[in-house]
Amino acid sequence: MNNKSLLKNNERIDQLFSEGVEIIQSAEVFSFSIDAVLLANFAEVKKSQNTNIVDLCAGNGAVGLFVSHRTQGHISMVEIQPRLADMAERSVKLNHLEKQINVFNQDLNNSEKVIAPDSIDAVLCNPPYFKVSEKSIKNPNSYLAIARHELKTDLESVLTVSSRLLKMNGKLFLVHRPDRLGEILNMMEKTRLSPKRIQFAYGHDEEEANVVLIEAIKDGKSGGVRIMPPIIEYEGSEYSEEMKAMLYGNPS
Amino acid sequence: MNNKSLLKNNERIDQLFSEGVEIIQSAEVFSFSIDAVLLANFAEVKKSQNTNIVDLCAGNGAVGLFVSHRTQGHISMVEIQPRLADMAERSVKLNHLEKQINVFNQDLNNSEKVIAPDSIDAVLCNPPYFKVSEKSIKNPNSYLAIARHELKTDLESVLTVSSRLLKMNGKLFLVHRPDRLGEILNMMEKTRLSPKRIQFAYGHDEEEANVVLIEAIKDGKSGGVRIMPPIIEYEGSEYSEEMKAMLYGNPS
Repeated sequence: MNNKSLLKNNERIDQLFSEGVEIIQSAEVFSFSIDAVLLANFAEVKKSQNTNIVDLCAGNGAVGLFVSHRTQGHISMVEIQPRLADMAERSVKLNHLEKQINVFNQDLNNSEKVIAPDSIDAVLCNPPYFKVSEKSIKNPNSYLAIARHELKTDLESVLTVSSRLLKMNGKLFLVHRPDRLGEILNMMEKTRLSPKRIQFAYGHDEEEANVVLIEAIKDGKSGGVRIMPPIIEYEGSEYSEEMKAMLYGNPS
Repeated sequence: MNNKSLLKNNERIDQLFSEGVEIIQSAEVFSFSIDAVLLANFAEVKKSQNTNIVDLCAGNGAVGLFVSHRTQGHISMVEIQPRLADMAERSVKLNHLEKQINVFNQDLNNSEKVIAPDSIDAVLCNPPYFKVSEKSIKNPNSYLAIARHELKTDLESVLTVSSRLLKMNGKLFLVHRPDRLGEILNMMEKTRLSPKRIQFAYGHDEEEANVVLIEAIKDGKSGGVRIMPPIIEYEGSEYSEEMKAMLYGNPS
């Protein structure tokens, strides 16, 4: 099949070179961000064929596609927006991963209709970051607004559903905004998730963090969280060496 | 008075050059650590004479002494160990700060006997870090054991007392171990303290964080925490420029 035949209007194919993955993007609808790359890099997925992984709030499927080459396990993507789920579906075809990846166009609250509770080893989630309030400025583009603002789901739902899907000792890998850290940790305590590793990413080394990555274990012992080394995204106006390795792979 | 006359057996006078403060130390009893320097540097204290500051778990008074030159406010030190409170008292004399600083040799649970509740603008606290369990190895030196392990107080007491002493919108500045971050944020929520700024310090830039600094506001709005730029303590085997400035001051 000609790859281009998988594209719809105003879509393009981008490549994450470090993972050798091609992904259908659209500036109008959804393009993955550096946060998806950071999350995929942060997540630990087991190699074994018996591993069950869920990419929750999957968007165009970037995170699940990025980790697919590091595991023989099965990946279920859950995405509420039909247009985005369709892009993810076509990217799965583009990479010939139909046997490894299923895309479910579902509200995450209905995840249990398609994924058994207490069955998942790892949930990866890049959810909408922004609270919705009367005052909040939402993106006039509804695709992007739903992806970025808590219009269709919120932190509590995301953590509750993640916890229900995970096996005992299964792990959630979450990317979010640092300004919601307190809320996230408080809500994790209420949803049987114990944070084990936290990592912050900073634009430059003298700036405040703009991304937080959190690994949490279902029904794990509380306490003992590790704060991993800082990730600095840029040196001057260029990506840092660390980010270049995530994006382009290590030179060989 | 001859400064040496203030010293007891096995004590010495150290100086924090950046603040021009002299402090009585003893390897056998208590010496301030880099954490005290980080906390004093992190804490924002108002200049005004009307400012009321408490140094809780004051040890030999290092944190309170370090901030004393940045404010005309009054500082109350609370320390449970008579030997350490006595060292703090003598350091206050050594620096001629008797009018600005009071040392109270008190269990912090009795703080309200000497400090009015809801009266404090800023609480600075470098508490014992380690939980006590049957298995935990406590320092055989009882002075150091009490300073480092939760033998005489614990996180809940420290946060409860801090919250009671603080005015509405008063601020707690706390230094602690990053592995207790989740617990600290959860306990803050229960004690009417909202984290506003968090900063992590890392030994080297590729290591996990070894210190966390937290600013929390009493009865503040929840959410909106800022993760400040990372502090890297060492470059190779030397202090980093940032740490040198905190310890020795800026070259002039």
